[in-house]
Amino acid sequence: MVRRNEVRRAAPVDAAIEVPARDGARGLTFRAVDIEAAVPLGAASDCFSSRDDLLTQAGARVYERLRPDEETVARQRAAGKDREAYAGIMREVVSRIAAFRTGHLALLELRLEATRRPEPRTVLTERVQADVEADVRHHEGPGLHGDATAVKLLHLVPDWLIVDQLTLPDVFTPGERDRLVTAAVERIVTDER
Amino acid sequence: MVRRNEVRRAAPVDAAIEVPARDGARGLTFRAVDIEAAVPLGAASDCFSSRDDLLTQAGARVYERLRPDEETVARQRAAGKDREAYAGIMREVVSRIAAFRTGHLALLELRLEATRRPEPRTVLTERVQADVEADVRHHEGPGLHGDATAVKLLHLVPDWLIVDQLTLPDVFTPGERDRLVTAAVERIVTDER
Repeated sequence: MVRRNEVRRAAPVDAAIEVPARDGARGLTFRAVDIEAAVPLGAASDCFSSRDDLLTQAGARVYERLRPDEETVARQRAAGKDREAYAGIMREVVSRIAAFRTGHLALLELRLEATRRPEPRTVLTERVQADVEADVRHHEGPGLHGDATAVKLLHLVPDWLIVDQLTLPDVFTPGERDRLVTAAVERIVTDER
Repeated sequence: MVRRNEVRRAAPVDAAIEVPARDGARGLTFRAVDIEAAVPLGAASDCFSSRDDLLTQAGARVYERLRPDEETVARQRAAGKDREAYAGIMREVVSRIAAFRTGHLALLELRLEATRRPEPRTVLTERVQADVEADVRHHEGPGLHGDATAVKLLHLVPDWLIVDQLTLPDVFTPGERDRLVTAAVERIVTDER
């Protein structure tokens, strides 16, 4: 077995996103990952210690790929701290997530698999809680709008909008999606702190 | 083949909810429904014209079982039309959906299956749109709070809260879930109409 190598591992872990997005969580096997990644049969089982490891690494990889690049972060920081800037960032987040269609579908599949398997449930729970808490702390900074309740509610609205967008794309038009995100920020973010 | 009979059909259509909730949409086969419903092998294929029919009838049955009973509807009508009453109804809706765990999990599985199959996608899209539109019309009635934007946003918040509750139940406590629903109504429902 060759030594683990981040470059070689990228393909199987990305394949572990594409497979459940296309075939459902139950289709996510080592063999399906080998085929999707076009690596020799058996390669995926060298990369991942168990099926739970495969599931949790696939989830972590989705979050990693959704992280905004440095340029986007710098632009968002420079955009100001008012409600309009917040709404603009939210619309960008929704677009970025919706554009990585297989990533969000894979996360939904992993969540459904988490109803059956405690290990992915624990890892995903920690990940989601850490995300929400980091966002709440960020908004406690000077001058930023949004108390903890606002930040939490503004995680819930786009999460389901994206589910609608990916699974039943005709429920809302892209324009209506943007208007709903903007209205959510305008109404949920109050000036009381 | 025996004539279709609503009493006899209840078991297979309810089994068609339990199977995907437990085993994923890919596990939803006629044979799995026969076994889950404890009916003779081949009975499910007499009840449903195709696998798409099975999927869409399972979805319709979830909505049917989630409909509040007459007593609940009467109590909600009598509860008044202000924001507090709206929040109370929303908390009840979230509890009722979360209590029918397999129903909501099956709907999520059906949505994911809808990314692969046009027929369930069309049926589910019509169903979700009809629900949102009926709710918007209801809130146009005299004295009720909530413009169309509020009603739409107040569909999105509980939908994802329930996903969190069912798939990663430790993200929010039941008390925090109730507080978030209440805060969502208080902030999203404005007095401007």
